[in-house]
Amino acid sequence: MSDQGSQPDQPEQSLDKAARNLDAYRARYAERTAGMTASEIRALFAVASRPEVVSLAGGMPNLAALPLDSLATEVARLVSEDGQVALQYGSAHGVPELREQICEVMALEGISAHPDDVVVTAGSQMGLDMVTRIFCDPGDVILAEGPSYVGALGSFGAYQAEVVHVAMDDDGLQPEALRQAIDEVGKQGKRIKFLYTIPNFHNPGGITLAVNRRAEILEICRQADILVVEDNPYGLLGFDGKPYPALRSMDPDNVVYLGSFSKTFASGLRVGWVLAPLAIREKLVLTAESATLCPPTLNQMIVSRYLSTHDWQGQIKIFQEQYRERRDAMMAALEQYMPAGCTWTKPEGGFFVWLTVPEGVDTKAMLPRAVTQRVAYVSGTGFYRDGFGSRQMRLSYCYPTPERIREGVRRLANTLSEEMELVRTFGTVPPRSVPGPQAPSPDTA
Amino acid sequence: MSDQGSQPDQPEQSLDKAARNLDAYRARYAERTAGMTASEIRALFAVASRPEVVSLAGGMPNLAALPLDSLATEVARLVSEDGQVALQYGSAHGVPELREQICEVMALEGISAHPDDVVVTAGSQMGLDMVTRIFCDPGDVILAEGPSYVGALGSFGAYQAEVVHVAMDDDGLQPEALRQAIDEVGKQGKRIKFLYTIPNFHNPGGITLAVNRRAEILEICRQADILVVEDNPYGLLGFDGKPYPALRSMDPDNVVYLGSFSKTFASGLRVGWVLAPLAIREKLVLTAESATLCPPTLNQMIVSRYLSTHDWQGQIKIFQEQYRERRDAMMAALEQYMPAGCTWTKPEGGFFVWLTVPEGVDTKAMLPRAVTQRVAYVSGTGFYRDGFGSRQMRLSYCYPTPERIREGVRRLANTLSEEMELVRTFGTVPPRSVPGPQAPSPDTA
Repeated sequence: MSDQGSQPDQPEQSLDKAARNLDAYRARYAERTAGMTASEIRALFAVASRPEVVSLAGGMPNLAALPLDSLATEVARLVSEDGQVALQYGSAHGVPELREQICEVMALEGISAHPDDVVVTAGSQMGLDMVTRIFCDPGDVILAEGPSYVGALGSFGAYQAEVVHVAMDDDGLQPEALRQAIDEVGKQGKRIKFLYTIPNFHNPGGITLAVNRRAEILEICRQADILVVEDNPYGLLGFDGKPYPALRSMDPDNVVYLGSFSKTFASGLRVGWVLAPLAIREKLVLTAESATLCPPTLNQMIVSRYLSTHDWQGQIKIFQEQYRERRDAMMAALEQYMPAGCTWTKPEGGFFVWLTVPEGVDTKAMLPRAVTQRVAYVSGTGFYRDGFGSRQMRLSYCYPTPERIREGVRRLANTLSEEMELVRTFGTVPPRSVPGPQAPSPDTA
Repeated sequence: MSDQGSQPDQPEQSLDKAARNLDAYRARYAERTAGMTASEIRALFAVASRPEVVSLAGGMPNLAALPLDSLATEVARLVSEDGQVALQYGSAHGVPELREQICEVMALEGISAHPDDVVVTAGSQMGLDMVTRIFCDPGDVILAEGPSYVGALGSFGAYQAEVVHVAMDDDGLQPEALRQAIDEVGKQGKRIKFLYTIPNFHNPGGITLAVNRRAEILEICRQADILVVEDNPYGLLGFDGKPYPALRSMDPDNVVYLGSFSKTFASGLRVGWVLAPLAIREKLVLTAESATLCPPTLNQMIVSRYLSTHDWQGQIKIFQEQYRERRDAMMAALEQYMPAGCTWTKPEGGFFVWLTVPEGVDTKAMLPRAVTQRVAYVSGTGFYRDGFGSRQMRLSYCYPTPERIREGVRRLANTLSEEMELVRTFGTVPPRSVPGPQAPSPDTA
């Protein structure tokens, strides 16, 4: 689960736009394709990836701490000794040994699972896309935190599902807001297919669902006959080292769990997994056959060998330390530089901070001016399907060094101060029209 | 493009069946999921993968000829020197250098393309699935050869598209049959979204579209405003070494081309591509972001480095020789052992032979008896959406050694002779009811 860094190809974009208008194939597309447009984040990466810009926008993990040399040795051994298996087709279900190891990884969060119920995917995004594909007809409703992961919203939109956001506060998803949302959707005669939630170190909220809320959230969903899709790429990246109990560990029959090696090992391998009850798992394997035949065999074997030959838990501790240091750098810089009226979340793990700016400032409109001042972020609007989020932004501390983070926040604070000065001088910019139900974000609830 | 070798997990299957009947989630699935069942090939691999069985069923390439040691060296260098890029997220569009090299590969078949119009996918199956997803609403019609690739039929079914088969003869897709199919679908008021075709060394037909038919097929589609999806995984594996001109080279604006490194290099890396006109390519990149975020970076860089450091065209010649030897072994054994009344295609490249048995024999019903005699094949019915193919089977010569091929064909011939004896004794088994339009297969046309 992450938004990835698209290659910059700016000169093409205007060309692309022209082509879209002249799209000779427009009348032939499926309905689901008609409204497909590039995400805000995608367009942004083109500018934000210039070296002079401090990007607080991307979700790329920092791989500098990986033991590349010993990894290279293992991978070479794999290719020369086991190449005829590693370079050959495998099953859509995934390499059996890796599925066993995945169960050991999940045991750290209290999950007891059988390897047969694990389906390996070409990255966790593929699991998310497949779950949506299996469950959602056009018009079906998915409940999701407001804000929510941009890649999830992309998949939900791709299958024409509607998203209803549910408010969070500093303890995560609010049970009362969840009850209300279920009621309201019911009154509209629509069908809720699942609750999509990122309980730990939320992207983009930077918030964790309190332990004492977990059973309540699960009970509400169970009562309402709503499946829970638990997306948990950051769960092992908590800064105090002790993982939270997974929702899946508390209700195995009603939770589909999405896991990933992208943040705890290597994102470019694209190895993730879905843990699902047997009947759903069977549909997932069939869907995976249609989607990619099988996940890359080599990549699965690399992860498997890494887990069996390296101190992977020690490596996760190194990642935790590294991200904690960067989180600290960002917190300190925000305290020091941010103008009065700004508030932000205090993540205890993961990659992201969710920042709320004073009324009158539109983070989407401000972005070009921030980039001119050589800092980039993601406007909050990308994390909602209902137009909310224009007073929010996501800041990520995962990739830049602490020094760069500090400099980036300084530049951002300058941009914000100038923007607020403009607002004071010329009055508040009228808010955009906001269709759909409002979903307060963590800091405005 | 290939059906891959599922891991055998036979004892589970009856369990799975029971679970399906008790599927607690059944009422919650999307419409597209309701009818989803395992392909015939999938169930088959469980039995056919026992070592005592000669499998003429699978489509796995033979990788024994790959230079694993020098490959291991290159891969190790990649991880140790470029690991922070190779193990990191990339763009959904694909690694730029690889997209340039892909254009060089396609130039061998007369294609002139810009790297921007290439989208790298996690295997060609993913390209096929995405093209279907972009174009097909439920009920839309796809034209495809009869028989056609089982993985394509799977994706078409997954998006609830209807398949209308078009007859082939020994020169491939018949232009007249294509015209008729277009007419008939039009009369039914249905919409054809594209023609899906495998022009070279067809899977499963083993047949190649004659060069002098190519322009005509393209012209028919252009006149009828039907897009052509050209699936070409075997194009460079012709036994006389000279590739056929790709359909894409003859009509760049109306052909979407699917390519793959699975047969010319390594299937387990899952690296394929789509070459598409600009507007479609843009939709593909967006769809790929939703499907997997990006194809595995490491795998793309491995292919790229292989292409730049190894004599990949020499390696393809080695593959051609190897498969030609196996094709020859199969042809000789078929001549020697097959009972009178059987006919088969004579492939000039690729992996597959399409065999037609005498009237009265049902290849699907016979399969368990063949497996008892320690030989496996794929019944022809798996390659049609309309129930046809019960007098046909696909034999593959790509994976077993020539000796094993010979032995397998001998066992198959024995099984067939016994089956024909039964038919003579007890009379013809009544044919299954065949819904939908009939599509003669290569040998019965």
